[in-house]
Amino acid sequence: MSIRLAELVARFGGQLIGDADLLVSGIAPLDQASSAQLTFLTNPKLRAAAAQTKAAAIILSVSENALLGDVYAGARLVDDNPYAYFARVAQLFAAQNAPAVMPGIHPSACVAPSAMIASSASIGAHVVIEHNAVVGSNALIEAGCFIGRGAKVGADTHFHARVTFQAGCEIGARGIIHSGAVIGSDGFGFANERGAWIKIPQTGRVMIADDVEIGANTCIDRGALADTIIEEGVKLDNQIQIGHNCHIGAHTAMAGCVGIAGSAVIGKYCTFGGAAMVLGHLTIADKVHISSGSMVTRSILEPGQYTGFYPLAKNADWEKTAAVVRNLSKMREKIRQLEKTVKSITEKNNE
Amino acid sequence: MSIRLAELVARFGGQLIGDADLLVSGIAPLDQASSAQLTFLTNPKLRAAAAQTKAAAIILSVSENALLGDVYAGARLVDDNPYAYFARVAQLFAAQNAPAVMPGIHPSACVAPSAMIASSASIGAHVVIEHNAVVGSNALIEAGCFIGRGAKVGADTHFHARVTFQAGCEIGARGIIHSGAVIGSDGFGFANERGAWIKIPQTGRVMIADDVEIGANTCIDRGALADTIIEEGVKLDNQIQIGHNCHIGAHTAMAGCVGIAGSAVIGKYCTFGGAAMVLGHLTIADKVHISSGSMVTRSILEPGQYTGFYPLAKNADWEKTAAVVRNLSKMREKIRQLEKTVKSITEKNNE
Amino acid sequence: MSIRLAELVARFGGQLIGDADLLVSGIAPLDQASSAQLTFLTNPKLRAAAAQTKAAAIILSVSENALLGDVYAGARLVDDNPYAYFARVAQLFAAQNAPAVMPGIHPSACVAPSAMIASSASIGAHVVIEHNAVVGSNALIEAGCFIGRGAKVGADTHFHARVTFQAGCEIGARGIIHSGAVIGSDGFGFANERGAWIKIPQTGRVMIADDVEIGANTCIDRGALADTIIEEGVKLDNQIQIGHNCHIGAHTAMAGCVGIAGSAVIGKYCTFGGAAMVLGHLTIADKVHISSGSMVTRSILEPGQYTGFYPLAKNADWEKTAAVVRNLSKMREKIRQLEKTVKSITEKNNE
Repeated sequence: MSIRLAELVARFGGQLIGDADLLVSGIAPLDQASSAQLTFLTNPKLRAAAAQTKAAAIILSVSENALLGDVYAGARLVDDNPYAYFARVAQLFAAQNAPAVMPGIHPSACVAPSAMIASSASIGAHVVIEHNAVVGSNALIEAGCFIGRGAKVGADTHFHARVTFQAGCEIGARGIIHSGAVIGSDGFGFANERGAWIKIPQTGRVMIADDVEIGANTCIDRGALADTIIEEGVKLDNQIQIGHNCHIGAHTAMAGCVGIAGSAVIGKYCTFGGAAMVLGHLTIADKVHISSGSMVTRSILEPGQYTGFYPLAKNADWEKTAAVVRNLSKMREKIRQLEKTVKSITEKNNE
Repeated sequence: MSIRLAELVARFGGQLIGDADLLVSGIAPLDQASSAQLTFLTNPKLRAAAAQTKAAAIILSVSENALLGDVYAGARLVDDNPYAYFARVAQLFAAQNAPAVMPGIHPSACVAPSAMIASSASIGAHVVIEHNAVVGSNALIEAGCFIGRGAKVGADTHFHARVTFQAGCEIGARGIIHSGAVIGSDGFGFANERGAWIKIPQTGRVMIADDVEIGANTCIDRGALADTIIEEGVKLDNQIQIGHNCHIGAHTAMAGCVGIAGSAVIGKYCTFGGAAMVLGHLTIADKVHISSGSMVTRSILEPGQYTGFYPLAKNADWEKTAAVVRNLSKMREKIRQLEKTVKSITEKNNE
Repeated sequence: MSIRLAELVARFGGQLIGDADLLVSGIAPLDQASSAQLTFLTNPKLRAAAAQTKAAAIILSVSENALLGDVYAGARLVDDNPYAYFARVAQLFAAQNAPAVMPGIHPSACVAPSAMIASSASIGAHVVIEHNAVVGSNALIEAGCFIGRGAKVGADTHFHARVTFQAGCEIGARGIIHSGAVIGSDGFGFANERGAWIKIPQTGRVMIADDVEIGANTCIDRGALADTIIEEGVKLDNQIQIGHNCHIGAHTAMAGCVGIAGSAVIGKYCTFGGAAMVLGHLTIADKVHISSGSMVTRSILEPGQYTGFYPLAKNADWEKTAAVVRNLSKMREKIRQLEKTVKSITEKNNE
C-alpha cells in the first residue's frame, strides 16, 4: 500500500518540497531505500549518504535541507524534528502491514463470567481473565496472557503473548506490555524475627497511566500497603525490576536491566542507562540522567547527568589499578606525610 | 471482618494496654489508619506521627511505649518485635480478604493421569502437570503453571500464575513462587573443542526446602550432576539468577537482580543487596552481608558487611576521577619517586 | 542401559587401554562413580582422587595418563580433550534416560491451519502456533510455548516449556531455548518530541543460526528496520538482554545477566562473564573476553581479556577508599604541587 506525500503532510505537518502526488510505499535507511520509498536524514554524519540515496523522498530538518543543497533530486519533507516525523511515518506503514485484529474471545480462553470485555477487544488463545477484570475497547490481549481478578486494561492497550497482569492492577489507554512481563507480583517485604523472615503481605496495587510501554520480562511489584505508581508516557525496556511502592514520573525512560529498589521516587523526564540501579527510599529530581551501570546511593535533587562505574581496561592493567584502589587510603596518608616533610624542609631552607 | 484485640494477643502474644474487646478491621500506616483500624510504630522518627494517629490501637515496643507517653489515647499492643507483630497481624487481615481457594482441577488444565494431586489442592486454568508429578495438600497452583515430570510441590505451597517448575525438582511446604519464575532450567555447562561448545547435560535437580519464597522471573538452574540446593526460609526477590549446583543456606535473603554463579556455596543468614554478584565456586560464610551492586570475586570466610561499587558523581566529576583511576599505577610510581627524592633531600640536609 | 567401551571408542574416538567389552552404565565424578560407571579426570588437582576412584574406567588426557601411573587399575580412555569426551559420553547417557518424545500435536494446542508442522515434530499442551509458522522435523516444542506468525523453527530444535518466539523470527537446527525466554520482542526505540517519546516501530526480525542455546528468561529484541543476528554455536545463559540490531558472532558465549545494548557488533569466539554490559553501537573484535561485572563503553579492536569493576572490601575499608576515589582529581593536583615543590628544592640545593 502506498501513500501520497500530500497525505503525510496532511497527517503530520512539515513543509513539502516536491511533487505532492508522489506515492511512497515504505520507509528505509538512506543506503537501503528503494526509489519507491521514503528515507530520513537525522544524523549529520550521514549527509554524504543522503546525496547518494535512491529514495523518492527524504525527511530532514531545515538546516540539513539547506546544507544538502541540490545534490539530492528527490522530494523533501522538511520538519523541525525529522526523527519524530520518521517515527510517525514508520508507525503509519507498520500499522498498514500489521495483521488485522479480529475482535472477540478465542474459544480456548478462560474468561470469568463477571469480567467485562469490550466487544471490540481481541482476546487470544489460552488467555485467562479472572473475576471482575475489565478490558477496554480495541484492546489486544495476545495468546497466553493472564489478567487477575479486578484488574483493568485501558482502551487500545496491547499485551503481547504471555504477559502476567495480577489482581487489582490497572493500566491506561494505548499501553504496550511485552511478553513475559510480570505486573503486580508481591513486593519484597519481610520482618526479621530471630533470623527468620516473616512475610509482610503486599496488598497495594500497580497503577499505570496512559501511553506506557513495558519491556519483555520486566517486573513491577505491587505496593505493600499503598500503590506502586507509573505515570503517563513512561517507557521501560526489557529485564527491568521496579520494587514495591516506587513512583516513576511521567515520560521517564529506562534502558534494559535497570533495577529500582522499593519506595524510590523518580522524577519526570529522567533517563536511566542500561543496568543502572537505584537504592530504596531515594528521591530523584526531574530531568536527572543516570549513566549505564551506575549505582545511585543517595537522593539526587538537581537535574544533570550522573555516573559511577569502574572504567574498563585490559585485565593486566586493571589488576594494577585495582591493587592501588584497595590501598588508596594508605596512599592518601603517604601523600599527607610527604606534604608535611616537604613543608618542613621548605621552612628549614627558608630559615 | 473485624477482630478483637484480645484475639490478637491470644494468637500473637504481646501485652495489651487498653480495651480487650475493642474491634479493629484492618491495619494501616500511622498517618493513614482510620479510627476503626490498627497501626504500628517501628521507626522512632515517626514518634510524632504516632501522637497524631487516628488509629484505634497501636503496636509498639516497650521503649517506644514509654517514650510515646500519654499523647496517644488509644489502645496499645506492646511487643519486643513490633515489626514482626505487624507482619503477623497484616497476614491475618490479608488472609481474611483473600479470595476463597476452590479445591479441584480446572477443566482446561492438562494433568497426567500418573500425577498425584491432593484432593485439597487447587489447579488453575491451563496448568500443565506431567507424569508422576506430586502436588501436596492445600497447594494453590494458579493459571498457566507448568510442573514437569516427577516434580514435587509441598503442602500449602503457592505458585502464582505462569510459574515453570521443571522435571524432578522439589519444593517443600509453605513455599511461594511468583509469576514467570523458572526453576530447574539447564545450568550453563559446556566443554570447549577447537572453539566450539559441546553441551554438558544437566541431570541434577533443584531441591528447595520449606518456607522459601522465590520472586517473579527469577531463575534457579538444575545441577549438572549433583543438585542445586535452597535451604529452608530462603527469600529471593525478582529477576535473580542462581547457577547450577549452588547451595544457598537457610534464611538467606537476596534483593532483586542478584546473580550467583555456578557451584557457589552461600551461608545461612546472609543478605545480598540488589544486583550484587558472586562468582562461581566461591564459599560465603554465614551472616555475610553484601552491599548492592558489589561483585564478590573471592571466598568470604568472616561474617560482616562487604562492599565494592564505584561511587556515583556528577558525570563531569566522574570523568575526572575515572581518568585518574586509569593512571593509578603511574600515580603510585610518582609517589614512590617523590618519597625517594624527599628522603634523599632530608638525608643530605641532615649531613 | 549399559554401553561397551568399544562402542564409546567407535563413536567418539580416543585410545582404549583395557577391556573393550567392559560395560559402563553411566558417568559420575571421581569420588561418586560406582564400579559400574565411567569417570573423568580433567583437573590435575584431582589426580589423587583419581587414584582412589571406584570407577570401572576413566577418561583422561595423554599426559594425565602417564602421570597417574599404575595406581589406578581400571580401564582408561585416553583423549586429547577429555572434558569434551566426557561431555559427549554424558550426552549419550542423558539421551538414553530422556523420556521418549511422541510426535504429534497435543489436542489442547492451538495451531493455525496455515502453519506447517513436520509430522515428526512434537507440539505440547497449550502451545500456540500462528499463521504460516514452520516447525521442522523432530523439533520438540514443550507445553505453553508461543510461536508467532511466519516464525521458523529448525529441525531437532527444542523449546522448553513456555518459550515466546515472536512473529517472523527464525532459529536453525539443533537449537535449545529454555523456559521463559522471549525472542523477538520490540527493540527499545523512540524519538523524543518536546519531552515525550514517540515509538519507532520495530519491524526487523531475530535470525538465529544452527546450534544456538538460549537460557531461561533471556530476551533478544527484534531489529528496528534490519534484523538482529545470532550466528551459529552461540551460547547464552539465563537473564540476558540482547538489544535490537545486535550481531553476535559464532561460538561466542555469555554468562547470566549480561546486557548488550542495541546495534552492538560482537565478534566470534568471545566470552562474557556474568553481568558484563556492552553499550550500544560498539564493535567488539573476535576472541575478546570480558570479565564479570565489567562495563564496556568503547569498541575493543584487539583480542584479550578486559576488566572493569570495583574491587570488593570490608564495608568500612570501602568507605575509606571510596572517599578517596571521590577526591582523586584533587589528590592528583596535590601530587603535581609536591613534584613542583620538590623539584624547586632540589634545584636550589644544587645551586
